[in-house]
Amino acid sequence: MNIFVLGGDGFCGWPTSLHLSELGNDVTIVDNLCRRRIDRELGIDSLTPISDIHERIDCWREVSGQEIQFLNIDLSSDYAAFLQALKSNHPDVIVHFGEQRSAPYSMKNSLTNRFTIQNNLVGTNNICSAIVESGIDAHLIHLGTMGVYGYGTAGLEIPEGYLNLELGGSDDMEILYPANPGSIYHMSKCQDQLFFLFYNKNYQLRITDLHQGIVWGTQTNLTRLNEKLINRFDYDGDYGTVLNRFLTQAAIGHPLTVHGTGGQTRAFIHITDTVQCIEIAMRNPPEKHARVKIYNQMTETHRVRGLAKLVAGMTGAEISFLQNPRKEADENDLEVSNECFLTEGLEPTRLAEGLLSEVIEISQRYAERIDIEKIPCASFW
Amino acid sequence: MNIFVLGGDGFCGWPTSLHLSELGNDVTIVDNLCRRRIDRELGIDSLTPISDIHERIDCWREVSGQEIQFLNIDLSSDYAAFLQALKSNHPDVIVHFGEQRSAPYSMKNSLTNRFTIQNNLVGTNNICSAIVESGIDAHLIHLGTMGVYGYGTAGLEIPEGYLNLELGGSDDMEILYPANPGSIYHMSKCQDQLFFLFYNKNYQLRITDLHQGIVWGTQTNLTRLNEKLINRFDYDGDYGTVLNRFLTQAAIGHPLTVHGTGGQTRAFIHITDTVQCIEIAMRNPPEKHARVKIYNQMTETHRVRGLAKLVAGMTGAEISFLQNPRKEADENDLEVSNECFLTEGLEPTRLAEGLLSEVIEISQRYAERIDIEKIPCASFW
Repeated sequence: MNIFVLGGDGFCGWPTSLHLSELGNDVTIVDNLCRRRIDRELGIDSLTPISDIHERIDCWREVSGQEIQFLNIDLSSDYAAFLQALKSNHPDVIVHFGEQRSAPYSMKNSLTNRFTIQNNLVGTNNICSAIVESGIDAHLIHLGTMGVYGYGTAGLEIPEGYLNLELGGSDDMEILYPANPGSIYHMSKCQDQLFFLFYNKNYQLRITDLHQGIVWGTQTNLTRLNEKLINRFDYDGDYGTVLNRFLTQAAIGHPLTVHGTGGQTRAFIHITDTVQCIEIAMRNPPEKHARVKIYNQMTETHRVRGLAKLVAGMTGAEISFLQNPRKEADENDLEVSNECFLTEGLEPTRLAEGLLSEVIEISQRYAERIDIEKIPCASFW
Repeated sequence: MNIFVLGGDGFCGWPTSLHLSELGNDVTIVDNLCRRRIDRELGIDSLTPISDIHERIDCWREVSGQEIQFLNIDLSSDYAAFLQALKSNHPDVIVHFGEQRSAPYSMKNSLTNRFTIQNNLVGTNNICSAIVESGIDAHLIHLGTMGVYGYGTAGLEIPEGYLNLELGGSDDMEILYPANPGSIYHMSKCQDQLFFLFYNKNYQLRITDLHQGIVWGTQTNLTRLNEKLINRFDYDGDYGTVLNRFLTQAAIGHPLTVHGTGGQTRAFIHITDTVQCIEIAMRNPPEKHARVKIYNQMTETHRVRGLAKLVAGMTGAEISFLQNPRKEADENDLEVSNECFLTEGLEPTRLAEGLLSEVIEISQRYAERIDIEKIPCASFW
């Protein structure tokens, strides 16, 4: 198959591109490289020494014999170039990772807020509009977030995207699970859902929307093949997820910093499983005229303090509780349906089993590259 | 009070600006004049001979002795200028009409689609972000649309914005009425709702969102004072509402063209009532920390064929039924709550009473300016 991976230079996009290429597909990475620009803007860097996109692709050609094409296109500002690429390449599948993905970055200031809206919303509309205008029948697979489910549902399992309402009238409604975003970034993903609802309804675009949990882990079997293929590991206060920040703190003997009581429950998935899920979604496209297919892309839930204890147990680190910089409940439960992927054969990598290799392979190995001052949260809301 | 009217050169914005100025407020119109640019792009023109913005403002100064300020700012691309205007003027109220408002125009082609998204979404986010960044405590009043309520609710009245869900868990949810937009334009207004939800929740912005029906009528008591103050009357296939197209057809002896069975029920409000509603909303701002206040800004509902009969009865025109160019149900019911405005004193102008003066004052008076070729719908979806 001919596959476009938008944002294919990023943390999820790169290992996905390698996996889809390994399977024998023609892979084209479309990326504006904004994630690397933001590294420079914030004075941060991946803990792992990532190669630039051309070195990565050259190395992959040597290692695998497979060619990955790279198009440096900004989806939010260069519509014509993207449209032309669709017309020339006729991709069967478009995997859309091309969004600014940090909630704290989106909340940093007016510039980062507005960049997130421009990049994510205008970008997503341009993608959908270009698919319609080009006339291709591509399956669009979008990486969304569990964060679109913002409402507490004590005792209830969060469904996969849709909710049935019985309002007493003759028409029952099947609605998108109500949105209640917690950041500008999460809001952009809620607004994306409306793009997909509309383009599917009006233009019969075939769309799969993946509501992903927090991704942990760094390497896949393919990014391990050569150090030039290594994947990103972010540990800074904006892009580093809670688990990566714990691992980094532990590696240099710093206490693990937990916000509030650490009672926030979050959904997680390993990067290897993310890649598998994209493949599963690709193999199971929605039928023509079917509604948008929504999967919850996560494999387990943990409270933040539970994660801290897990990392502390493996590394001997201490735990330190700080004031929560965000507006959120101190304690929340989270039950999530992830039937779809399990039914279709996903075999999850569990945190309890996979975490130790992260400690040894990544955070301890690259400990000398850690800049401790970058770990604390720098965005408050 | 110091009031910004965004989109104050447009069909709703201009009479609102005059009314608020007449009441003794300091009014600043902020407009990128894109509606006039689109007239030239489409080769259309208001049936009424509107003056340019500077002539209008000069005439108003002569007629009333009141000064209206004009800032030619594009809200979606010139954030810095708008932020500076907020910091210099400290408006108490910002009335936001500054959006591309035609569903057919938004569905015309990829360019008009993408313009609508850029103008409406990036513009609305820039406005909210600039209010936060400037630190002013302005009340934002936004003109939304009844079209955000896309779901059929046979036998049920559409509430004013919110719906209570009892899901069986301990937490009931009060959610925005589920969105199901019928065009790119309507989608942008649904996405606007999420901006307001978030900026209100996170930054305590005081926001009123008005879900407006189809506005009919042209003149208010103030736009009548001098022909240089005259308001727009659009009758073309993109910007002309169904009623204006009927009036124009009748004026030149053309049959009234009804799409499908004409069983579509729509909500209506007279332009004079729109202006009154803005004043009412302004006098009743939400309290600090209150949720977004949502009103349904409409006064009566009619089926399209009922409107055709009404106009035919007044003018002797014939009625002709054409195939519907849009994807929508042929027949739908519509019951809408508009408690809020009625409670707060709105005295509606009814179609049955006000329509005849439209026929005489506008469509017959300017009949020689009608270009019959511009009336049919040019966008199909």
